Amino acid sequence: MAYFDSVAKVTYEGAYSKNPFAFKQYNPKEIVLGKTMEEHLRFAMAYWHTLTYGGSDPFGDDVMERPFRGYDGMDLAKARVEAAFELMEKLGLKYFCFHDRDIAPEGATLRETNRNIDVIVSMMKEYMASTGRKLLWNTQNMFSHPRYVHGAATTCNADVFAYAAAQVKKGLEVGKELGALNYVFWGGREGYETLLNTNMELELDNMARLFHMAVDYAKEIGFEAQFLIEPKPKEPMKHQYDFDAASAVAFLQKYELLEHFKLNLEANHATLAQHTFEHELHYARIHGVLGSLDANQGDLLLGWDTDEFPTDLYSTTLTMLEVLRNGGLHQGGINFDAKVRRGSFEKEDLFLAHIAGMDAYAKGLKVAAKLLKERVFEQIMDKRYASFKEGIGLEIVSGEANLKTLEAYALEHGIRRNASGHQEQLRSILNQYIWNNE
Amino acid sequence: MAYFDSVAKVTYEGAYSKNPFAFKQYNPKEIVLGKTMEEHLRFAMAYWHTLTYGGSDPFGDDVMERPFRGYDGMDLAKARVEAAFELMEKLGLKYFCFHDRDIAPEGATLRETNRNIDVIVSMMKEYMASTGRKLLWNTQNMFSHPRYVHGAATTCNADVFAYAAAQVKKGLEVGKELGALNYVFWGGREGYETLLNTNMELELDNMARLFHMAVDYAKEIGFEAQFLIEPKPKEPMKHQYDFDAASAVAFLQKYELLEHFKLNLEANHATLAQHTFEHELHYARIHGVLGSLDANQGDLLLGWDTDEFPTDLYSTTLTMLEVLRNGGLHQGGINFDAKVRRGSFEKEDLFLAHIAGMDAYAKGLKVAAKLLKERVFEQIMDKRYASFKEGIGLEIVSGEANLKTLEAYALEHGIRRNASGHQEQLRSILNQYIWNNE
Amino acid sequence: MAYFDSVAKVTYEGAYSKNPFAFKQYNPKEIVLGKTMEEHLRFAMAYWHTLTYGGSDPFGDDVMERPFRGYDGMDLAKARVEAAFELMEKLGLKYFCFHDRDIAPEGATLRETNRNIDVIVSMMKEYMASTGRKLLWNTQNMFSHPRYVHGAATTCNADVFAYAAAQVKKGLEVGKELGALNYVFWGGREGYETLLNTNMELELDNMARLFHMAVDYAKEIGFEAQFLIEPKPKEPMKHQYDFDAASAVAFLQKYELLEHFKLNLEANHATLAQHTFEHELHYARIHGVLGSLDANQGDLLLGWDTDEFPTDLYSTTLTMLEVLRNGGLHQGGINFDAKVRRGSFEKEDLFLAHIAGMDAYAKGLKVAAKLLKERVFEQIMDKRYASFKEGIGLEIVSGEANLKTLEAYALEHGIRRNASGHQEQLRSILNQYIWNNE
Amino acid sequence: MAYFDSVAKVTYEGAYSKNPFAFKQYNPKEIVLGKTMEEHLRFAMAYWHTLTYGGSDPFGDDVMERPFRGYDGMDLAKARVEAAFELMEKLGLKYFCFHDRDIAPEGATLRETNRNIDVIVSMMKEYMASTGRKLLWNTQNMFSHPRYVHGAATTCNADVFAYAAAQVKKGLEVGKELGALNYVFWGGREGYETLLNTNMELELDNMARLFHMAVDYAKEIGFEAQFLIEPKPKEPMKHQYDFDAASAVAFLQKYELLEHFKLNLEANHATLAQHTFEHELHYARIHGVLGSLDANQGDLLLGWDTDEFPTDLYSTTLTMLEVLRNGGLHQGGINFDAKVRRGSFEKEDLFLAHIAGMDAYAKGLKVAAKLLKERVFEQIMDKRYASFKEGIGLEIVSGEANLKTLEAYALEHGIRRNASGHQEQLRSILNQYIWNNE
Repeated sequence: MAYFDSVAKVTYEGAYSKNPFAFKQYNPKEIVLGKTMEEHLRFAMAYWHTLTYGGSDPFGDDVMERPFRGYDGMDLAKARVEAAFELMEKLGLKYFCFHDRDIAPEGATLRETNRNIDVIVSMMKEYMASTGRKLLWNTQNMFSHPRYVHGAATTCNADVFAYAAAQVKKGLEVGKELGALNYVFWGGREGYETLLNTNMELELDNMARLFHMAVDYAKEIGFEAQFLIEPKPKEPMKHQYDFDAASAVAFLQKYELLEHFKLNLEANHATLAQHTFEHELHYARIHGVLGSLDANQGDLLLGWDTDEFPTDLYSTTLTMLEVLRNGGLHQGGINFDAKVRRGSFEKEDLFLAHIAGMDAYAKGLKVAAKLLKERVFEQIMDKRYASFKEGIGLEIVSGEANLKTLEAYALEHGIRRNASGHQEQLRSILNQYIWNNE
Repeated sequence: MAYFDSVAKVTYEGAYSKNPFAFKQYNPKEIVLGKTMEEHLRFAMAYWHTLTYGGSDPFGDDVMERPFRGYDGMDLAKARVEAAFELMEKLGLKYFCFHDRDIAPEGATLRETNRNIDVIVSMMKEYMASTGRKLLWNTQNMFSHPRYVHGAATTCNADVFAYAAAQVKKGLEVGKELGALNYVFWGGREGYETLLNTNMELELDNMARLFHMAVDYAKEIGFEAQFLIEPKPKEPMKHQYDFDAASAVAFLQKYELLEHFKLNLEANHATLAQHTFEHELHYARIHGVLGSLDANQGDLLLGWDTDEFPTDLYSTTLTMLEVLRNGGLHQGGINFDAKVRRGSFEKEDLFLAHIAGMDAYAKGLKVAAKLLKERVFEQIMDKRYASFKEGIGLEIVSGEANLKTLEAYALEHGIRRNASGHQEQLRSILNQYIWNNE
Repeated sequence: MAYFDSVAKVTYEGAYSKNPFAFKQYNPKEIVLGKTMEEHLRFAMAYWHTLTYGGSDPFGDDVMERPFRGYDGMDLAKARVEAAFELMEKLGLKYFCFHDRDIAPEGATLRETNRNIDVIVSMMKEYMASTGRKLLWNTQNMFSHPRYVHGAATTCNADVFAYAAAQVKKGLEVGKELGALNYVFWGGREGYETLLNTNMELELDNMARLFHMAVDYAKEIGFEAQFLIEPKPKEPMKHQYDFDAASAVAFLQKYELLEHFKLNLEANHATLAQHTFEHELHYARIHGVLGSLDANQGDLLLGWDTDEFPTDLYSTTLTMLEVLRNGGLHQGGINFDAKVRRGSFEKEDLFLAHIAGMDAYAKGLKVAAKLLKERVFEQIMDKRYASFKEGIGLEIVSGEANLKTLEAYALEHGIRRNASGHQEQLRSILNQYIWNNE
Repeated sequence: MAYFDSVAKVTYEGAYSKNPFAFKQYNPKEIVLGKTMEEHLRFAMAYWHTLTYGGSDPFGDDVMERPFRGYDGMDLAKARVEAAFELMEKLGLKYFCFHDRDIAPEGATLRETNRNIDVIVSMMKEYMASTGRKLLWNTQNMFSHPRYVHGAATTCNADVFAYAAAQVKKGLEVGKELGALNYVFWGGREGYETLLNTNMELELDNMARLFHMAVDYAKEIGFEAQFLIEPKPKEPMKHQYDFDAASAVAFLQKYELLEHFKLNLEANHATLAQHTFEHELHYARIHGVLGSLDANQGDLLLGWDTDEFPTDLYSTTLTMLEVLRNGGLHQGGINFDAKVRRGSFEKEDLFLAHIAGMDAYAKGLKVAAKLLKERVFEQIMDKRYASFKEGIGLEIVSGEANLKTLEAYALEHGIRRNASGHQEQLRSILNQYIWNNE
């Protein structure tokens, strides 16, 4: 493997070091709450941002310096596989994720496209076997090609729906072949541009139909991945149907898909929907649908999906706190759905950025573990809600109370004094846990 | 009635007039699609903005000139009832809405508070009987008083929950007494300020518990109003649980409340959640929960609830288009949950503002009716989704298709050409319908 | 000319028509306030959106059906010139605008690039002469190419600055050759991604240096176009230096460029900066820098530059009101810096969209003219600020008053009653003027 | 002093402690870069949030538990002075800030109001003398009273302007009497609600007139405070004239006030204007107008001014980095323009919140000092912009180059390779400096 030879060796070091490629916080074998960091943080490389993204934006051309420039077609696809596994090796990433169209180019026909995929899947399978890397999830790109201009599952053109279904079928087969742990649906064009020409009811019904077909076919072929929906409120569409965790749960409930699906939550998608990432995790957790994470961060002063590498320790700490409360992510993992800034166009930046993200999550894990072990916020909450553990509170929670008994209680009793929520102190405590290293 | 004598008579005129107190578009008896305007547009006066709001904002004191200044306590409450019915009479508003605490002051005890309410309810009942005005809905204010600082149904203090339950019980009784057509829950403090001290699961469970108790008690006393939830994403709380229509539907489904509740949708709440108002109506309509409207508008360049009187004809047209597609609002109506700007502090502004809003809705109704009668957008959609009425599309919709049959179809057939969505033309057509008066 | 033969003839009709290619409001020779519509509304075609935009977005590939697909290199550039003039002819657009890189491809060297430009400029000059079309403005694209990854005038690489300067020099020469009425600077990469590595002071100084060089060179070659800065707050950069009209004025004042520059204001850029378009025009007007307009509109519920064709009559009316108050745009015009939606990919949409925009501006012009002729808002303001025309108000405005005389006045006199701002009524009046056609 | 006796003693401790009232980071006498922390961080208490804010919001009543409840009128005003100095003493705050109306109630006449002020000022003067506390700045509240409904300096009513001028005159006299280091203008109603009735030109001219009068009068009475403008983009008004630092600079330049004014920058106002706080500081610094800070933070997912106590270490670090680069704040300081959350209604929260903020700033100072001492980002920038120190870059910067010489250079030379901006690495470095304590 030679694509990234010029890059200095990535090392695991527990302490601050002048080597920019050294991990300062992430140490895969370090034990945290009884498991290794590596087990807690099943980091995955996102094929699209890391291997195929060239650096273009709506106002600029490709700029990224990539060692496989010059190749094209299937040669490029193969070079990317090699580069991908070299990168994973050097960075200590054990998992990866891809869209079908990331790994192989479309051919002249669907049949040819599928053959291209088969070639690459076969190659990947060997690499996976020899390196021990695993596929965290795969998915299908049903948003880039012009045929999906009006949506895939939610298209107004039945032929396009059929094509999408064929693409999903192949995706499930690929997932099975490569032992994918999860299978993701991100509906990049499943939404609308204007309600003036949109039949939302038919479109939602059709989206549910495709999901049921996928569930049925996975069962038929014995593909046991966890299905995941990835919410995003907007972009590229003006409105996307899987707006946030709550709207996804509404959809799954309505169409009786809740037992088959969990959520793949992304930080930047959360903030575009005006939620913190930890809110989305918390909501998903208590609804039993916390599946997997797309780790990145947005710029809250910008209004589009910037997909930056995650470095905000507040966010990684609160994210890991929710994950630990969930007993971990189970079949899920932490996929770096993040791209280097356009100005970070050197190949070294792929390393620096992943290391920044891994360190931020490792630090977040350690702080969250300490908070949880010491039951810092848990104690506060136990005390705060204690009134629901006895007396009238217990009657409310157990279902014994009704409006009449509660009115009688209220007329007779005063209200026990409310206690301060001490929000400023809680934030200060969080700061202390982040900046204290002992 | 003498509170607004100085205001020139409000008149109905079909055409432009120099008289600022003349309606230019709203004519209650005019027939539109087989019903009078008055039947289509069941306008209601919001007690809080119109009778009790003094003009304060976070940086300024009360400024509104109101004819009942000088009164206080129960005298003020009574003066407001008189003023309310005078206003409704003069403006031709047939309905009104209130929170319990809008109509009567809190007493030293809950018992006294309830007695205050009884006095006013009794007075209102007489006025209603003599003037034919109706209560579109009532609700309870469980957000202003310090006791609700941490929420009502979602409080961390069981005594507060009991108190809230007592307040709801009384609200239901008042609703029954006054023949309210609907009963609303807006959860002004049902949400959180920080997740660091919040047990969202318990809070949501408790909210559902209160709703079930309300349903049970309404049944017990024979109160047949439609229950309504009013979504809002934030403000006053950092996060409010009934974030938007979709999250409310998720909640109602999870807690088996969908058969008992519909939604009271507000324009400004929609845009704070980053949705158009028509989106929220459309979503609610296809989920069978389009209940009633809080008519107002926000300033999309500001980030808080401005509750402005609705004057945007695009919004009122698309709103009424959804209402007409829903076969009307049934038990619901159009409540002006809108306040005059702080700078519009003269009592005449109450008239000018309501007329502005009623005219905007009347114009919206007329344009929407014409669009619907001519099936302008319906025809476009019929054609656009025609492929799902036959062949492979019909197989998809009817449930006959599966991934294998669809892949076979996709491999064999090309994709029928997608057609343009013509969004710019659709907007131009909408413009033409708005600016043409014939 | 044969690129758009299939499109039905575009016609001018004063009234509603079923023909989608008929103008409903725009009639070039109609007289409004003593000038023809055509003179008021110097519409320009934006080369980039109309000729070169293929429909890609960050999540999708090109989709636009364009009659010159298949060509490339200089052949494509020439085909676009032909198509551009055919479109302008058919739509009655008298002006156009372009970036240097829109009209001709980059060659292997700057010299070759400039030669490519010369070929196309020469061709354009002939077309302009034979068709009477004019260049409203030209500009240079110093943001798409990788060399500009860190900015052009505000780059951290002196060689890049030199290259940018060469590009500006050529742009000025092209402008002179084609008789451009204005010359625009939009700083697509003039800003920063992170302050951590940014020397803002040097970058701003350098931007001013380039502008002074441009002013000097234009004088040297006798190019008399009006220089224009185009503000935009963000996108593609996290922060762009010409954030809004006010920050551009701050810059121009500091660097003594105010006498040489005006502003080219864009609707969508205004709203991204949290201003209404009319605010930016008003601010520019009273600072003497209202230069030219980029006509489009954004989606206020989305956070990126959507560049939609303008159809909002409120915005076009208030925009034209400011333009009329400015005595027109003088050397400026109204450039459709707007792109058809990705879903509007048929070539007919180019016509439908421009017609939608031209009609919206024509209607806006007519309403604004009527408002101005009847002095509707002018009268309201005269009355509102009347107290500054006499007595203590006049002393304040004339500079005679000081804190001591004013304190003496305040201690002695009461305050004359404030009058309501009647905002709701003003909006209702605006509605009446929009929906009345007589 | 007895108002806060129940609160456990506040102590300065260098390390983590179980005592919630202990400072973990702030140690006033600790030396950082040659000065004590206390000298670097001239913390001030904001009278309005800490002494007069009762906890109301647009949807709720006062809730704060304050020891001086029960007093009113001048008795309350005096109690607040006592409480203020007790709080400053216990928290180690050396400075305070107030609006005229914070400290004393309005009387029946302006004369009486001023007498009320005199009583309190006299009392404060004694307390200041005996405790060594200083007035960082005072200002006037010209936004809460109904008379200012349409603005103060920018009112449409000349009498109101005169009244405002009288209020400013008194404010300057109070500032002089108490030795205020700065004098602030925050234009809470200086803006507009709708352009339909606004003469922005007259309003801006009048605002400048008032500022010139203030400058003149300060000179006359020998008041040598630094004048400060405090930008805020919106709220309460739809648009506020001092939108952000850049628009304030544009205003000061236009009206020849730049030599007399600097800026008082607030974190939450910055983010409401879509800028980071450090952006506003950086911009002000390089324009020579970095005056003083209002320390707080907003919630970037909310759209209004939340004025939370600052706890974000990223923000405090980057803020202090700009302050240190500015050579400190000179006459300015760090005013906690922050209010405890409504749910933090206990009096202890005033302590906990200030400690949280002081610790966050102290930690920010220490990290910033280390970054600066090691020239971490300075080195990166030196290298990044090195090309402007020699050759063609030096010619550009020195003014020798012009478009022709630069074109000649560009045609002859290739472009030196751009280098990556390494944004991800820079953020990771920042993280390391924050979490490392050695």
